[in-house]
Amino acid sequence: MAKGKNKKLRVIPLGGIGEIGKNMTLLEYSDNILIIDCGLGFPDDDMFGVDIVTPDITYLQNNREKIVGMVVTHGHEDHIGAIPFVLQKIDIPIYATRLTIGILENKFREQKFDFEPRLNCVSAGDHVTLGVFDVEFIRVNHSIADAVCLAIRTPVGMVVHSGDFKIDPTPVDGDMTDLARLGELGREGVKLLMCESTNVERQGYTPSERKVGESLVRFFDEYRDKRIIISTFSSNVHRVQQVIDIAAKHGRKVAITGRSMINIVNAAITLGYMNVPTGVLCDISEVKKYPPSKMTIVSTGSQGEPMSGLYRMTYGMHDKVDLGPDDLVIISASAIPGNERLVGNIINELCRKGIEVLSDIDADVHVSGHACSEELKIFHALTKPEYFMPIHGESRHLMRHKELAEHMGMPSNRIFVSEIGKILEIDSTGARFGVSVPSGVIMVDGTGVGDVGNVVLRDRRKLAEEGLIIVSATVDFSVYDIAAGPEIVSRGFVYEKESEQMISDMKDVARDALKDALWQGVADYAFIKGRVRDEISKYVHQKTKRKPMVIVMLMEV
Amino acid sequence: MAKGKNKKLRVIPLGGIGEIGKNMTLLEYSDNILIIDCGLGFPDDDMFGVDIVTPDITYLQNNREKIVGMVVTHGHEDHIGAIPFVLQKIDIPIYATRLTIGILENKFREQKFDFEPRLNCVSAGDHVTLGVFDVEFIRVNHSIADAVCLAIRTPVGMVVHSGDFKIDPTPVDGDMTDLARLGELGREGVKLLMCESTNVERQGYTPSERKVGESLVRFFDEYRDKRIIISTFSSNVHRVQQVIDIAAKHGRKVAITGRSMINIVNAAITLGYMNVPTGVLCDISEVKKYPPSKMTIVSTGSQGEPMSGLYRMTYGMHDKVDLGPDDLVIISASAIPGNERLVGNIINELCRKGIEVLSDIDADVHVSGHACSEELKIFHALTKPEYFMPIHGESRHLMRHKELAEHMGMPSNRIFVSEIGKILEIDSTGARFGVSVPSGVIMVDGTGVGDVGNVVLRDRRKLAEEGLIIVSATVDFSVYDIAAGPEIVSRGFVYEKESEQMISDMKDVARDALKDALWQGVADYAFIKGRVRDEISKYVHQKTKRKPMVIVMLMEV
Repeated sequence: MAKGKNKKLRVIPLGGIGEIGKNMTLLEYSDNILIIDCGLGFPDDDMFGVDIVTPDITYLQNNREKIVGMVVTHGHEDHIGAIPFVLQKIDIPIYATRLTIGILENKFREQKFDFEPRLNCVSAGDHVTLGVFDVEFIRVNHSIADAVCLAIRTPVGMVVHSGDFKIDPTPVDGDMTDLARLGELGREGVKLLMCESTNVERQGYTPSERKVGESLVRFFDEYRDKRIIISTFSSNVHRVQQVIDIAAKHGRKVAITGRSMINIVNAAITLGYMNVPTGVLCDISEVKKYPPSKMTIVSTGSQGEPMSGLYRMTYGMHDKVDLGPDDLVIISASAIPGNERLVGNIINELCRKGIEVLSDIDADVHVSGHACSEELKIFHALTKPEYFMPIHGESRHLMRHKELAEHMGMPSNRIFVSEIGKILEIDSTGARFGVSVPSGVIMVDGTGVGDVGNVVLRDRRKLAEEGLIIVSATVDFSVYDIAAGPEIVSRGFVYEKESEQMISDMKDVARDALKDALWQGVADYAFIKGRVRDEISKYVHQKTKRKPMVIVMLMEV
Repeated sequence: MAKGKNKKLRVIPLGGIGEIGKNMTLLEYSDNILIIDCGLGFPDDDMFGVDIVTPDITYLQNNREKIVGMVVTHGHEDHIGAIPFVLQKIDIPIYATRLTIGILENKFREQKFDFEPRLNCVSAGDHVTLGVFDVEFIRVNHSIADAVCLAIRTPVGMVVHSGDFKIDPTPVDGDMTDLARLGELGREGVKLLMCESTNVERQGYTPSERKVGESLVRFFDEYRDKRIIISTFSSNVHRVQQVIDIAAKHGRKVAITGRSMINIVNAAITLGYMNVPTGVLCDISEVKKYPPSKMTIVSTGSQGEPMSGLYRMTYGMHDKVDLGPDDLVIISASAIPGNERLVGNIINELCRKGIEVLSDIDADVHVSGHACSEELKIFHALTKPEYFMPIHGESRHLMRHKELAEHMGMPSNRIFVSEIGKILEIDSTGARFGVSVPSGVIMVDGTGVGDVGNVVLRDRRKLAEEGLIIVSATVDFSVYDIAAGPEIVSRGFVYEKESEQMISDMKDVARDALKDALWQGVADYAFIKGRVRDEISKYVHQKTKRKPMVIVMLMEV
């Protein structure tokens, strides 16, 4: 086909490169754009008041007629979380496995969507044709059930996208990552491998999910007399299944608490991803009916999230559960970077109250869902790609993944460490970086999507660090004099009741500056405001070495 | 002595219990108060704009005539950092080893103190009599030179305070922790052990400082052609000494950058704690004179601190050093909890620029300065205390340290897990908790010590999360009408240029509320302001689901 020869495949990451989270990649060929994943990111520490961030989809909005569909690798927030925001702007058919679809349906229901998203259920092994693309879904192990990686046939060759994966030869349920199929793809010929980099800095292999079960059995044996509270990621269906199985074997009931845990367990049971023996589950309101030795509670809050199940239990705010010395709390998760302090606060509070806690620091109660370096090498060795782009990682991870590929013999000039928005072009003559498309973060605060921009953030940062002083006055330009005020109010600067002298001095400074400016006979708001602001700032800095925001409100009678 | 029999020793921690940092403990007996250490703490994430925190010393200010002196275990900020703030309020004689005194003198010089602190130099092995207390200084290993622990003879028995320590049988310089002396104290009889808990969660032993040297030699051999930049804690004199020695052996010059690194290296050389071969050091301005293979740079910034040496080099803001592909950056430190993100940002930026980085994640280029659990056991086994109080740790560490002591056979009722401010009383009949004295944090922002209180912080938090809306108006109570305004200004809420409609709607809402309130004929500022605030808040929440701070400024003509 001559057509394929001069046309290019364009690979465009919109998220997940140089950052953890908000994973999203586009494959574009001629008039076809395929979207892979569409995840949320988490705000940086200095994005004050921002709840979540989503990828910038300007490029998709400008090319909406080209979109042939979206394929989703698994149901974690950093891969599906931005879908509701994107669907509100562009109606796109979505293809994903059954559990992922179930989680999406829950999400749409909760957010009370007023349109019907086009959700299409696939299974591992299926092929779907979307425009010029043939997408094959391939089983991988991950910390959520029903995860897949993707082999996408394009006119210039095959692209393999790893999604998030690990290799677990003894999974709790379902099959191992389909290494055989990956090997077949390698023999068939892989043009480009996009492979996740989360754990590339860790040597060796990630242990099997089954290892957590073995640890839990040990603790259920050791703490027979205690009530056991286990907090984990709600999406880790296999982890929750293990807890339920072990509890049942030990003659314990299981109660679930935390909204997302209840949602996902219900979805997983309905869809057949969990199997709960009759009579084991009980409602959280029944917890007090059973002695500690007969009760297990499975809860959200493994990241210390405020108002999660574990948080409310820890701080005595849970209406059904009071924790005490008869309890053992197991935090079956590791803290996601940035959450260390939140998790630490929970552990400290429990310790302070004399409640025993086990966490991944001192007990093997968690394993990662991501491949360590030896597993990554297997993925590379099987797929034998011509080109490689490390994805899903900060710069340090991407560079380390590049080194790993080089170590395996791949020439440096076939490895593309990219950035979000940056286009990788592949055609019959080779691969190279091209220009960039718009990319970045959209910050979401409350219901306003995208209206928290850099100006708003800069102000919040300033207000947070230094507080503010407001000077308000009314002037009469007919006589060039002050008609009312000036009044001074401050917030986040000093405690006004203890700083009356300073406030009163500031009034004098403001009055003098106002009069001075007015006497020059210029009825210029900006000029007068500027004078007052400068004088107040100067006075305050002299007195306190601080630089609060100063706002001057001027009115005219 | 009958006197000693009915009198009590009171042990009063003012910091370092239930928290990391701001270490400070008082021993009080009759009219004698001895202070042990006086450190800084670091602000929590939600203490917006607060630079540092110091212990609340109300109790000392109220009992200043009882103070017999302060003894200091070593020169780290969390043990000495609050001394300048305390000395400004109370003049106290200070006793510490030579390097610690040198660091303090630097600190006073930098802060341009206008009084002469009473600093007294002691050596390990010395005794000092302060009131009824006899204080013996005993050598320990730590990540700063010249660290000591304390044996304090009191009328009710001996108190041993571990300071911060590890057991390093092959220290780079100086002696090992004086285990023999600790054993003698144990035979003499220790009434109370106060022992640090930082690394109690870690099994085994902390490796020797020498291990870092061995790793560094390996990397200096491997990266012969590169310029090597090493960032570490400036106070780790032994670490810097090792770098200088290895660089000299490899025929490299060493340049120092970062204010605190220059200060401490100078102090250490002057005081004889460092030994630099002639001709090895060169000024940072000479860096470009030498080829990469002949140059080593030692820098601050191992915690990613903004504007530190490493930070400026990484972001191209250093006026003498440009980093490039000929450089290897070694971060010889681990991130202190809370700094992970700052350190990560530096590593990512270096990777993004193609500069090779080694950190403690993948290379043995750092060891801790604190005892792991086996070393703690040795300390307990040697001192054989009658009572034990775990110190220097969050609740989780204190509880774990209690378990360690119980595991070694100490009865639970002889272990006192305390809180700051809480008094432990010890007399001839036993030990028990008593009442509490004032304690807490004093927040320092700029030059104002203590004026950032909870009200100010609450406002900063609110402003940071949600921003603010200011409504300003002038009223004429003679006719119960609006004379000027209302004007609306917002900051950190929405981008005003893109939200003109909302701002204009808010003006209408404010005007209606004002008129409504005025027409009721009440000249009551609080009532009118309240009405306007409520209506604006209601409108904004309806529109955006957010709750910005609303400030109403009302003036009268």
